[in-house]
Formats: sequence, structure tokens, C-alpha cells
Amino acid sequence: MKASPPLTLQGQGSFFVGGDVEKIKTEYLTSPDYAGKIMTDQMYVQFQLPEKTNKQFPIVFMHGCCLTSKTWETTPDGRMGWYEYFTRKGFKTFMAEQVGRGRSGFDPTRFARVNAGDAPNTDNPNILVATDRFAWNVFRWGDYETKTPYPGQRFPMQTVGVGENAGYSFYKQVIPDLNATLSDAASPDCNGGTCTPIEPDAPYNSPDNLARLSNQLDGAILVGHSQSSSFPTRAALRGAAKTVKGIIQLETGCFTNLTADHIKILKKIPILIMVGDNYTVPQPTPACVTMRDQINGAGGDMTFISLPAIGIKGNSHMFMQDTNNLEVADVIIDWIKQHVAKDRRG
Amino acid sequence: MKASPPLTLQGQGSFFVGGDVEKIKTEYLTSPDYAGKIMTDQMYVQFQLPEKTNKQFPIVFMHGCCLTSKTWETTPDGRMGWYEYFTRKGFKTFMAEQVGRGRSGFDPTRFARVNAGDAPNTDNPNILVATDRFAWNVFRWGDYETKTPYPGQRFPMQTVGVGENAGYSFYKQVIPDLNATLSDAASPDCNGGTCTPIEPDAPYNSPDNLARLSNQLDGAILVGHSQSSSFPTRAALRGAAKTVKGIIQLETGCFTNLTADHIKILKKIPILIMVGDNYTVPQPTPACVTMRDQINGAGGDMTFISLPAIGIKGNSHMFMQDTNNLEVADVIIDWIKQHVAKDRRG
Repeated sequence: MKASPPLTLQGQGSFFVGGDVEKIKTEYLTSPDYAGKIMTDQMYVQFQLPEKTNKQFPIVFMHGCCLTSKTWETTPDGRMGWYEYFTRKGFKTFMAEQVGRGRSGFDPTRFARVNAGDAPNTDNPNILVATDRFAWNVFRWGDYETKTPYPGQRFPMQTVGVGENAGYSFYKQVIPDLNATLSDAASPDCNGGTCTPIEPDAPYNSPDNLARLSNQLDGAILVGHSQSSSFPTRAALRGAAKTVKGIIQLETGCFTNLTADHIKILKKIPILIMVGDNYTVPQPTPACVTMRDQINGAGGDMTFISLPAIGIKGNSHMFMQDTNNLEVADVIIDWIKQHVAKDRRG
Repeated sequence: MKASPPLTLQGQGSFFVGGDVEKIKTEYLTSPDYAGKIMTDQMYVQFQLPEKTNKQFPIVFMHGCCLTSKTWETTPDGRMGWYEYFTRKGFKTFMAEQVGRGRSGFDPTRFARVNAGDAPNTDNPNILVATDRFAWNVFRWGDYETKTPYPGQRFPMQTVGVGENAGYSFYKQVIPDLNATLSDAASPDCNGGTCTPIEPDAPYNSPDNLARLSNQLDGAILVGHSQSSSFPTRAALRGAAKTVKGIIQLETGCFTNLTADHIKILKKIPILIMVGDNYTVPQPTPACVTMRDQINGAGGDMTFISLPAIGIKGNSHMFMQDTNNLEVADVIIDWIKQHVAKDRRG
């Protein structure tokens, strides 16, 4: 770890949003003497407020598959992450942890049902485990078999076992994904990286909690990444149409099944979709072209930025951790300044 | 959430300690196309460094059962927690998350083995779930059936559904405990709150990682609570004898089976055991009396503080969140000043 230049905070802390109190069957408990209720589906939120805030709305980051809010903290090779950088840039900065991961916890009931013999072993919720091969492919580092990164790869490859002083520090932030345990929505079935789509406004645990958070903050810019890339849009469609002030979808979350009612909401919210380099398919994808045409055709404001197309080359799927992560952050901040209304109450 | 007075940090961030790279059987993966290796048993550590540090060694907090590092952050009713308070008091402050919880992740292999039909359903690792009844009893709030807190109860009971504006915000930080999935050590079998003891120097995942952290910091004061209360002592006995500079065990972690070799190590390290109010058994317990006699009889420095015995009444098991949590923190800081050597390199 490296010391950073001093950072003065007006406040810091954490809290929860959402959550349901459920009774759990006594025989599912390891301590049957303690029959009672448990909490599930709550979402953990961590925040810091800079001493000198800018006039923008607060920004909320949500991580992707098999990761936690660690995504936005210190990079695997020890550099400053976006949580600190956006704070230094004057944003009230929040990190929301997906329900089913990290400090948000998960619903243990289905596992316990199998233990108790009330359900067959095949009813254990699927735990999504991201292997090193998964990471090389989905995070677009290069060729897994030969461990050859793409030319000019910006990810700190020494943290995934390539190059001098190679280690595995990146993999330590990859943890099992328990989204399949959740009650509110089936986890998308993402075998092989291809997910079965969920309707834009279907009940969905983490987006619903993001909507609650946005309303509680009375205005926020929501950022999703990868697995959660569609969640800011879902939050806007799930009860936070008036308080989601900006939508930022990092790789990628474009919808092809928006209705007229959805577009009526989304055309009022500035939307940024951003992708990195080394995609095997042309960018923007047909889904993103469709969504942009629908939104902008209705008078909305959706921007698609491919980093290599604006001269920033070599970025992986994890550009918040790439060696040029602060340069990429600046592209986002510039977009916010140009597209998102300022907080007049600020 | 409340804004606090400004806090200036010299640095902040997070990193991991420990971890093993394992190959996972392809049939255990939800994405069989991504056969490869996974990381398990790593420990997530979050830290902040005050601009003006005191001369004490860094302090490391580890939470208890069914909780995460959230334990030390903002209290359920929105007051300052110990993570921020110790930083404000000049400590380089670290929070280490138990392996099997939160951002440290867990080992999914045994669940996957059951899913694949390679093991019977009863082989699912037990998930320890803390119900509301568990919390009322183990955290010593009062009578669960009538929801009557002990007189003078210091825990913010409005966060557990008692009193005006009652909610359930405390329970949101209670998440399922996956320690039983870990590879290095069997989790203590704690049915009904009575745990089968593990030898003081047995291989044990989180204490081993605490030892690594202490060595990496080249000197640290380790704080354990409840389930982890014995972990600082275990860390000292598991390879960090020279770098553990102070041991603080909050409720309680006393050993009755220390050998002469253990005592030779522990007599060189100042030890504080601290308990709150409303215990049904006299304090110190025979185990703590035995340990204190052994350590101090050998020329060591072990202190036992019962808060009510020094005039601080009404504290629950969760005194880092009680309404007088900063007063309790000051008792600990005073003990550190009086007993723990200062960091001459500071």
C-alpha cells in the first residue's frame, strides 16, 4: 500500500438500504435453540464526502460479477482507485455492494433446505465461480493458454501471474457470486458468459435497492459495471425515475426491449455507455445502436464512448483498475460536466 | 447518515493478505467452458492513515460471528464507529474481514460437490445464521420473548425493533457465516453458542492471515471480538510472536490449555481482555482467571477489565456500537498508552 497525498473528508461511513425480515424454519438453523427471524436482501453502502464538494449530484458505484466494492478501491498493484479519485474530484462518492455479495450478505435458506433433506442436492443455488480462464476471457486480457496479453494491454498483468514479480493479487478480489440465492429475482443465467435477458422493469433485488438509494439521496448519478451495467437503467425504471440524474453503464447493459413507457422515462436522463479495447465484435453492438436510436430519437441524451475510438488504447474490461484508470475517470467526469444537470441545492 | 467534523487522511485503501490458488473441477463450475483455477482463503483488509499519527503501533480490528468489518463503522443508529474514532485518535487503523465473510469470500467447492452429486446433501457446509433471538441472547440485550431490554441497556435498541421509531437497521449487518467452508481449519462447532475448542496453535485460516498482516505491518496491536476474540492470541502463536505488540480480546477468548511454549511467547505481549455488563456468570470466568494467572505468574502483563466493575454500566456484547461506544474506546486507548510499547520507528 502507498500513502496518498492528504485527503480531507467532511464525513465518511456506511449504512444499508432495503432488506426483508423473514422467519426461518427452525430445522434450517445450525442453532435450533435460536429459532427466529433473519434479514435478507439488504444492500450495504459505503460513502465518503469530500470537504469541498463540487456542484454535481452524488455518484454511486456498483461492481460486477464475482467482485465486490473492492473493485473501486486501491488497484491490485496498489494505485489509487476511483472511490478515492472521485472523492478528490469533489464528488460525494458512494459504493453500493450487490445483494448476494460481500457485506450485503445473501439468503442462506435454499442451501439450508438441501442440508435438511427438504430439497434435492440439485436444488443448491448455483454459485458462480470466476476462474482465471474466465477472467482472461471476460476481462479481455489476452490468450489464456499461452498467457500472452494483448499488445499494449493496460491491465496490471503482474497481478495475474504474467511478467516480472508476478503474483496473483488481482484474483484475491474475485469471490463466489451468490446472486442465485436471492428471493426477488432469478439471477440471470450466465453460463458461458451469455445471459438470458431479464425484462427491463422486472423485480430485481440490487436495482430495486439502487432505486431506494437514489431516492434517499434525492438525486444521484448511478454507475454500473459488467453484471450490474444495466442496473442504473433498471433503477430508473423501478421507482427512481425522478432521482436518477445520470446513468453510466460500463461494459455495457444495452436493452433492445424498451417499451414506449420506458423510453418516456429514460429520455429525460443523460446516459453514457462506455467500452474499452480488444472487443472481438464491433462496437457499439447492435443492441447499443438500437437503444441509442430509440432514446435519442425520442429527444433523449445517450452517448456511446468506445475508448479506442477516442484514442485511448489497450483498456481491459476492468478499466477502473487499468494503468490509465484516472485518465478514463476523467473522460467520465468530462461527460458528467457536459451532460448531467448540476445539483442546484448543492 | 450524519456528516462528521472534517477528517484529514494521509492515505486510505485496501489490500489482501494470504490466499491459495486451487484448481476447481470443471463439473463444479456453472461455466464449464472456463475450467481453471480459483483463489480461496484470502483475507480482505481496509485501512486509513490519519494525517497526524500518534506514536503507537497500527491497530487492526477483526469482527465476530455473522458480522463483517461493518461492525467498526457507522453504528446502526448513525453515530461514529471505532474505525473512524481510532483514526481520529491518531492510530493507523485497519479492519481485517474474516475469511468466509464479506469481501474475503469463501470456498464454494463443497457446495458445488453437493450440486454435482459427488457428495450427499448433508455434506453442504453448515451456514451459521444468526436470528433475532440469537442476537437478543448472545448480544445480551434482554428478554427476547417480551422484547424487554435490560435496565440501562446501552445498545441502540430502536435499531432492533424496540421503542419509538423502531426499525431493524442493526439486523442488516448480520449476514450468513460461511466459516464452515474453509479449508485450513474446521470452523468451531458452535451450536447453541457453545463452541468445541480448537487448540491455541492449530492451523486456522483467519488467525494465520492476521499473523501475516502483523508481520507485513512489522508490528501491530490486534483486536478480536466474540468469535474472533481468540484470534489475536492465535496469531501471536501462529508465526507473529515478534510483531504482535498488543492483544485485545473483546468478549472473550481466554484459553485454559496454553503450554509452557505458548506462555513463553505470550508473556512478552501485553494482553487486554474486556467484557461488558449483564453477564449471567461471574466475570472474569475461570478460563480467564487461569490464563491471567499463567501469563502474569510467568512475568507477563495480562489485564482483565469488566466495564461495570470500573463503573461503566449497561454495555451489551456489541460495545463498539453502544451509545457510549467512544467512552469504551477511550478505556482501550488508555490501556494501550499504559501497557503497549510505542513504535520507536514512528
